[in-house]
Parts: sequence; structure tokens; C-alpha cells
Amino acid sequence: MTAPALSQALARFIERTRYEDLPQEVVSFTKLCVLDWLGSALAGADQPPIRMIRELAEEMGGAEQAALVTGGRTSALHAALVNGAASHVVELDDIHKASIIHAATVVIPAALAAAEWRGRSGRDLIAAIAIGYDVCFRIGEAVSPSHYRYWHNTATCGTFGAAAAAGKLLGLAEESLVHALGNAGTQAAGLWEFIEDGAMSKQLHTGKAAMNGLLAALLAEKGFTGPTRILEGGRGFFHAMSEEFDASRVTERLGETFKIRENSFKIHASCRHTHPAIDLALSLRADPANPLRPEQVRKIRVGGYRSVVAITDDPSPASVYAAKFSLQFCVALALVKGRAGLAEFTEQTLHDPAIRTLMERIEVKLDPEVDAAYPECWGTRMEVTLAGGDTLTVRTDYPKGDPENPVAAEELIGKFRLMTDHLPVGRRERHIEMVLQLEEAADLAQFWPEGSRI
Amino acid sequence: MTAPALSQALARFIERTRYEDLPQEVVSFTKLCVLDWLGSALAGADQPPIRMIRELAEEMGGAEQAALVTGGRTSALHAALVNGAASHVVELDDIHKASIIHAATVVIPAALAAAEWRGRSGRDLIAAIAIGYDVCFRIGEAVSPSHYRYWHNTATCGTFGAAAAAGKLLGLAEESLVHALGNAGTQAAGLWEFIEDGAMSKQLHTGKAAMNGLLAALLAEKGFTGPTRILEGGRGFFHAMSEEFDASRVTERLGETFKIRENSFKIHASCRHTHPAIDLALSLRADPANPLRPEQVRKIRVGGYRSVVAITDDPSPASVYAAKFSLQFCVALALVKGRAGLAEFTEQTLHDPAIRTLMERIEVKLDPEVDAAYPECWGTRMEVTLAGGDTLTVRTDYPKGDPENPVAAEELIGKFRLMTDHLPVGRRERHIEMVLQLEEAADLAQFWPEGSRI
Repeated sequence: MTAPALSQALARFIERTRYEDLPQEVVSFTKLCVLDWLGSALAGADQPPIRMIRELAEEMGGAEQAALVTGGRTSALHAALVNGAASHVVELDDIHKASIIHAATVVIPAALAAAEWRGRSGRDLIAAIAIGYDVCFRIGEAVSPSHYRYWHNTATCGTFGAAAAAGKLLGLAEESLVHALGNAGTQAAGLWEFIEDGAMSKQLHTGKAAMNGLLAALLAEKGFTGPTRILEGGRGFFHAMSEEFDASRVTERLGETFKIRENSFKIHASCRHTHPAIDLALSLRADPANPLRPEQVRKIRVGGYRSVVAITDDPSPASVYAAKFSLQFCVALALVKGRAGLAEFTEQTLHDPAIRTLMERIEVKLDPEVDAAYPECWGTRMEVTLAGGDTLTVRTDYPKGDPENPVAAEELIGKFRLMTDHLPVGRRERHIEMVLQLEEAADLAQFWPEGSRI
Repeated sequence: MTAPALSQALARFIERTRYEDLPQEVVSFTKLCVLDWLGSALAGADQPPIRMIRELAEEMGGAEQAALVTGGRTSALHAALVNGAASHVVELDDIHKASIIHAATVVIPAALAAAEWRGRSGRDLIAAIAIGYDVCFRIGEAVSPSHYRYWHNTATCGTFGAAAAAGKLLGLAEESLVHALGNAGTQAAGLWEFIEDGAMSKQLHTGKAAMNGLLAALLAEKGFTGPTRILEGGRGFFHAMSEEFDASRVTERLGETFKIRENSFKIHASCRHTHPAIDLALSLRADPANPLRPEQVRKIRVGGYRSVVAITDDPSPASVYAAKFSLQFCVALALVKGRAGLAEFTEQTLHDPAIRTLMERIEVKLDPEVDAAYPECWGTRMEVTLAGGDTLTVRTDYPKGDPENPVAAEELIGKFRLMTDHLPVGRRERHIEMVLQLEEAADLAQFWPEGSRI
């Protein structure tokens, strides 16, 4: 007996998995993913690239099927496009290390648009999102790391996750889900070349991936066929788009474990490689016995893995964006301000003399022991020499928000409040309440408060 | 001085080329491309995959910006999607050998939607289409043949052509055109894997390519940025999506020659590899001195190049679709019916005893001389042994419709009439008249007769 085609195995998993099959902690975790996504989307809604995409969607017009985080309602496809773009622009959305996928920004907009349009329940949505994460994480793991050389995994692999989640919400049967996955894969796109210019394509990628996955599912619902072996087929996704791949990752323990729990959250509004050092700085500052104050610091030596040194050793960042990739800035910011959230990365902090003075005392270097544990552990060692000559040494193996160093729900709620502090307090708190009680929602067509406004 | 980036060179060409720069024969030829496209699109409009895509577009809704070949009007993006899908389903659309691109089905829907929405002139449309063909042919040539191993050139490379044509119609300046090309390339998709299942993805590819190219141009108009070296960049289209490439093909004689003239038209409704043999059969049948009649035939030996033998040697096709890939059927059909158009490939002809009897006398084999000239020449030698013992030998190097064996405008008009014989005669003839006088149209927003109906 030969193994079923990968799409078929995934389709069976998608069709058969019900909300009732999810362990309680998966349900709770998925709701936090939704909240975290919503925060990123609302925080990004007014950024220029998102404004442009929203304007275009408005000009195109469409039936009022789903809500936009930028306000108003539009067609399900346009909602997926705009919301998918909006949630990837402030760089605070979730990340899965093994597949290098930011799943929320692709899976959730597609799922939400389908759920709103078709009036599905909160439980349906939770199950669909957990399934969508699972599907794209598996495909991303199968093609990692070689696929990532050229391709933006979040967009390419994410398209499958969007189709899986949307297909689940449409109630597609196994055969139709195979076609949906097939036509998701044959639309998969998103090259890294844009990064050379810092171009806006990054948000187009995620918006389009959400839209394309939803499109594949909606067409499959009508009987539109696609390739049945899009992953492993001779002219399919694996062979065409990755130098090496491990197909077994797609089905390994499929249905036994929910990989959404492997998801990491970003608490600090900077490059992920700066996070372990920020965590250490904050822990020293918050030490109840001996809280570290900036003026006590004579020297800080930060020992990181290779990417920390290669990407974040910048003693003199020239812009707020560059500051997010400066370990010196991030550590000094954390020690001076006690936070490194969206609100802390500003022109003001960039030129704050207290921060700049402290930055001069911070040195970044490779720590061979920390590096040996990479990439399984994204760790950092920090050695602080005090003015009096004493030395404090601390170390972490995982940035806060990794599954091994989980962030508490309260902290994610706090992050959400910070990301949405431009909203009226009442609406912000109602969002938190709604998302954390998502399983109680009977009909998502009526989900968003205040009519058409998220 | 280094050469400008490829996108910049193309953008400059797109911006600077005006209708007035086109030689008269390019204008005439482009109009024939439009007519041929329209015939394919109208002939395919009611096919199941197109019906499904159209239904979905209807459900999504949209402003009435452009006409659908399936009837009615919708948003520019949806029009590009539906019309792009419709024009690739009856397999009679044009083909460019060197780039392996069917340009019409991607470039024209995107251009037409932009032109209708913005009320551009017929001259603007003609120039944009000629430019769009040029751009995608060049990119396709640069990545041929290796790209074609996995990728459907028409969709992937076609996306650039759609963006180029739409960008021209939007009046984008060089810098914006660079961004449009960048975001076209980063959306490029379409894997051949669907062919294993004969899935409907083929039409999704062309519809999406038209839509994605138009989307890239519309976003660029708003200032949305993209990668500036999408073709040759280290993580761009060439490196990611083709094993080998020749970047010089992109700019070789750019602006000096209009590659749209290299386009081939399909006259017969079958696999292109059967066309030279059909041409020969029709010429023997139409010989004014000695018209060949089926009952005179004792034996026909068809000598082809390798693909003729590999793909079209099928003495007993089981379906109408399979019959289009059976050289025995195609040659017998041509001799019995005197035509091999859309109307001739039917269940009736498939089981016609006269055709079946003749098929038994037809043999397909490799002709080393013909094969040696392939792929520059798609030739065939045919040797007919008559009942009386005499032998007729004929040979062609290029199927009818290749630039080396051009089809007359009158023949393409005849093909259009056959493809649209389900339409009222008045509408059909008006279409012909309108397209052949396209340069007279002042405002394409008002182009289609009978209001919203193509």
C-alpha cells in the first residue's frame, strides 16, 4: 500500500478535525493568536502601503461581506487582501521558527473573511485557524531551509494555510480540499528580492497570500479542480521551489499534535535577534533586590549567536527603523525606559542622550557557547560590569514569547493595548473581550461591534 | 558606466514608446491579435471553469469599470481575471515559439480593463498591447527553456506583460513602471503540475496573471514600491525560477523591433504539433488540378519531428479532447471535412466511420531531416500512396500561422467567425469591424456595443 498523496492526507486532516478535537490549551492559545493578529492589523492599518491597497480595494468596490481593519466592509477577497497586508507592516506579528512563517497575517485574514461572509461560529473559526497554522507550518518545515533562500515562506507556504482554513470554514469535503490546496500551491508567490530595496512588496505578499488561498478554496467549492499532488508532484511546489525538501514533515504526527502551540509571539517591537538581550536587560532592571539603573553601568558585554552579531551590532543607528536592528540601542532603551514596545521606538528615544550615552558602553560579540546552541536556541549571555567593579552575568536560551519561554496571556493583552492605543478605550477593551470569548460567538457575520467597523 | 537595471531599461522603453512609433504593419498585426484574442475569449466564455470564476466574481461584486466576455461589467481587476481565464480555455489562442508564451490571454485582458476603466483611446490600447507582448516575450526568451520545466511561462512571464501594458495605459512614469514590474514579478506564479490531472488551474493561471499584472500597475500608480531588480537581482525572478537564463535577451534590440510580429496564430483547433500535417492534408485536398479525396488514399505516412511522434501518434483517441492530440484523427478529419476548426472536433466526427476508416491508413513516424530542423522549424513531410499506386509527397517547414508562414487577415477573420458562431451575426460582425478600426476609437469606456455586453 502506498501512502496517500500529501494533499490528500492534509485534506483528510482538514475535513475531519473538529473544534471538539482541540485540547483546551489549543483553543486558548489560538484565541491569543487572533488577539495578537488583531493588534498588529489595527496598528498597521494606517501605514502608507496599507492605505494604498485599501484605496484600490475601495475603487474596485465589492459586496459587503467582511470587515476591514482599516474600517468599512468589502468583499471577502478584498478583506483578506487588505487585512493580510495590514497585519504584517509593524513587524510585531507572530513567528514559527521551524518553518520561518508568520502565520497569523495570512491564515487569519482568509479565515475571518470566510467566516464573516458565511456566518460561521467562533468555534468554527478557532478550529479553522488552528488547522491553517498546522498545514502551513508543516509545508514550511518540509522546504526549510532551502526554500527561504529565494522565497518569502510566509507568503508562499502561507497560501496553503489560508486555503486550508478557508476550505474548512466553507465545509469542503476531502476531494475539494485537495483541489483547494492544489490551486493554492499553483498561485504561491513572493520573492525576497524586494528586501534589497526595502520595498512595500512585503505587505503585498501577505495580503495576496491570504486572498489567493481564499480564492482557491472558494473556487474549489464550485467544483474548480487543481493539481492533486501539488507538493510532491514532479512539477509541483517542492521540486520547483526548493533545492532540498523533506516531504515526511508534512504528515509527521499529523492530527496528533497541534503545531500552532509552537508559535512564538513578539513582545518587543524590534528585530527578533535583539529580543533575548532585551529580555535580560529588563530582568536586571526589574530585579526586586537590586534593580539595575543605567548610571550604575560601566560596561555591558552582550554575547550572542552569529545572527545577533551579523545583523544587530550597530552602535549608531540613524533612523527609528534602523534602531530596531541595533542591539546597542535596544538594550539601552530597555534599561532606560523599562520597555521596548511600539511606543518606545520614536525619534525622541532615538536621540535621547541617556540612551545614547549608555549605548557607548555596550559591546556585542559572538559567544561560542550560545552560538553552538543556535538555531534551536536563540540565546544570549549578558555580562554587566558595574561602576563599583562588580559583575553581573545572566543568560537566556529563548527569547520571551518562544514556546519554551511563553508569554502570559496578560502580557499579550498588554501588548494589544499598546498596539491599539490610538483606538477609543471602549472599542479596544471590547475587542479583547470579544476575542477572548470567541468560542461563544454564534454567528461571525454579526461579530464586529459598531456595525461595519473593526 | 554600468548598464541600467533590466527593469529600468524596460520601464524606459514602456514609457517612451508611443503609438506613433509603431510601424503600420505592427498596428495592423496588433489589431489581428486583439481580434484573435476576442474570438478565443468569446468561444471560451461558457466553459465550466470560466463559469465558476465568473460566478465568484459576481458574488464578490464590484464597480462597473470594464466589460466581461461572459456578459455584464465588473471591476477592472475582476474583468482581467475572468477575461484572462476565458481566453485560454479553447486552446486556440496565439503562441510565441521562442518564449513559449500565449501572450494574448494575459496581456490583452489586463490592458483592456485598464483602457476601458480609464477611457483611453484605441491607439493607446494598441500601443500598450504591442509593448506588453514585447516585454513578456523578452523575459520568456531570457529564461527559456529551463524555466518551462516547472513554470507555465504564459502565466509567470505573462504577468510582466500585463503590468507593462496596464502601466502604459495608466501613463506611469519610468520609476513607477520599475515598481510595477517588480511587483508583477514577485506575484508571478503558475506550476505545470496541474497538467498531470488535466486540472482547471490552467485558466486560473492566465486569469490571475492578467489580474496580478494589472494590480501591480494600479498599486504603482499610488506610489506602492517594489523590487527594482526583480529580474536579475540575487533573490529575483531569474535566479529563483530558472536553472539557466540569458539576461541579454531582455534588452537585445529593445525598441528597435516589435516582437509582437513574431507571434503565431493557431488556425486549427488541435495541438500545435498536428498543424503542419493538417496544413499539408488541406493543401492536397484543395489542389485545383488533382484534389485528393479520402477514398483515393491507400496509405499516408506522416514524418514529423520528435514531439509529433511523442505527443500526437494516437491511432484511437477516446474523447474529443484526446482527438485534438491524435495526428491520425486530425489528418483524416482535414481530408474528410476540409477543415479542423472548433466546429469540427465533436462527438460526431470522433465516431464518423469515414474518418475512422481513413485513420487506419495513416502512420506516424520520425523523419530525421524534419527532426534535425526542429525546434526552429515545426515541419512535417507527408507521403500519400494512392489506390492506383501513385505517390504524392509534400512537405512544410512551418505550420500556417507562424510568422514564416503567415495567415492572411481574412483567414483570421474567418476563424473569428467560426469561434463566435454562437453569437448573433450582427454582434459578431460589429466586433470584427470595431477591432479592425480600433485606432479610430476615441474612448474605450464607451467601446463595447449594446452597453454592458461584449
